[in-house]
Amino acid sequence: MDRRNFFKKTAIAGAATLFIPEIVNSSSIAEAFSGDVKKYAFPAGATCLFQGDSITDNGRIREDENEANKQSQLGNGYVLFTSASILANHADKDLKIYNRGISGNKVFELARRWEKDCIMLQPNILSILIGVNDFWHAKQWNYDGTVETYENDYRNLIADTLKKLPETYIVICEPFIIHGGSALDETWEPQFAQFREVAKKIASDFNLAFVPFQSVFNEALKKAPSTYWSPDGVHPSMAGGQLMAQTWLKTVF
Amino acid sequence: MDRRNFFKKTAIAGAATLFIPEIVNSSSIAEAFSGDVKKYAFPAGATCLFQGDSITDNGRIREDENEANKQSQLGNGYVLFTSASILANHADKDLKIYNRGISGNKVFELARRWEKDCIMLQPNILSILIGVNDFWHAKQWNYDGTVETYENDYRNLIADTLKKLPETYIVICEPFIIHGGSALDETWEPQFAQFREVAKKIASDFNLAFVPFQSVFNEALKKAPSTYWSPDGVHPSMAGGQLMAQTWLKTVF
Repeated sequence: MDRRNFFKKTAIAGAATLFIPEIVNSSSIAEAFSGDVKKYAFPAGATCLFQGDSITDNGRIREDENEANKQSQLGNGYVLFTSASILANHADKDLKIYNRGISGNKVFELARRWEKDCIMLQPNILSILIGVNDFWHAKQWNYDGTVETYENDYRNLIADTLKKLPETYIVICEPFIIHGGSALDETWEPQFAQFREVAKKIASDFNLAFVPFQSVFNEALKKAPSTYWSPDGVHPSMAGGQLMAQTWLKTVF
Repeated sequence: MDRRNFFKKTAIAGAATLFIPEIVNSSSIAEAFSGDVKKYAFPAGATCLFQGDSITDNGRIREDENEANKQSQLGNGYVLFTSASILANHADKDLKIYNRGISGNKVFELARRWEKDCIMLQPNILSILIGVNDFWHAKQWNYDGTVETYENDYRNLIADTLKKLPETYIVICEPFIIHGGSALDETWEPQFAQFREVAKKIASDFNLAFVPFQSVFNEALKKAPSTYWSPDGVHPSMAGGQLMAQTWLKTVF
């Protein structure tokens, strides 16, 4: 085997072990991926929008939010890592990527700014990660929404979006917690699981892609403790953000 | 084919097209990878050190430089993207990653701080990207070093490192430019090519891994213009940094 063929062979073997980690590839979570939803292919010039709360926001510089692909407007978390991979690997597509996550947001707060922060951007692909505050703020602060509020608001948001942007490929990201985190206690479950189920059901009912973050983080905890993946159980670390990016990319492409 | 098998099949097919982009996989650069050098495997608790100039430094917060794996100390460029991938995919290894690149550095400036910024950290794996300033500062400012200075200084640095850290796996990164960048003019080549040749020869003479960044960026320019990969031809963009990370990971693992 000459050197070039050796290279090609090892490159293919390496790809599976290196870039699709054991965690994301675990057979126990494989079935959580929405294998029945069509995978996405970027048309030239496509716009990609990430929406959500602090996990999406993650320190983005809001003054730069109209500058597509600019690193500072993408934040420091999973949107950054996902976007960097998309831009490096689809360089001939002239893509435009935006992050419009805002810390603390619940679904009704997305809805209030949806015209400006989603519809007007006319995204070809729209990724939404929302839900932890819909639960957390009701539990800990004076927000009076319930899981029914979350479901109704979320269904209305998706229905409205599909009405105004019928061609948009929508990705529903599973809200998640990293068990053992300092912001959590034993009263989070099984209540928070209901919010995850709602997100999953909405994805299924509207035939949308669904990114199974909770399953992946559960698997990740077999490899390293909670603090490795998140300082508080809600907001991912750098390793957690990269794991999310790989999970997102695997779901969507 | 049931859903799980469908998933597994598409996952493997997807890995090659998604995470090992056409650019890095191009047959024209495949032979540039150091296929004869042993691939690296992390021992548990390993320390990984990135060294270099502004491309490595890339906005890292120097006050945090002793906090292994902290995102702020890793900067915003290829070290960040490489590290995030390493930490997500080797979560059970208890790794410690440091970035000690300093903007403007030439080889002799690495040497001056080598005891503190390399030897004392006892890295199991050490990656070095150095050379563009050794050329640029002589060309444009009042630095009087030549390609011979670069070669002698670099050989001495590597020999010294291997004497003090004989077990360390060393990665030599090819210094590169992204042709067409605003900081460059037609007088950069073929002179700068001599610096690249020196780096490659040192890797070969010491039997070290060699990361062929120039070949990869040349290939990348077939996909998107210079400004997509770098604002000035010297410092990579986010997409450029991610492409470097993928190239580095492919070379080393």
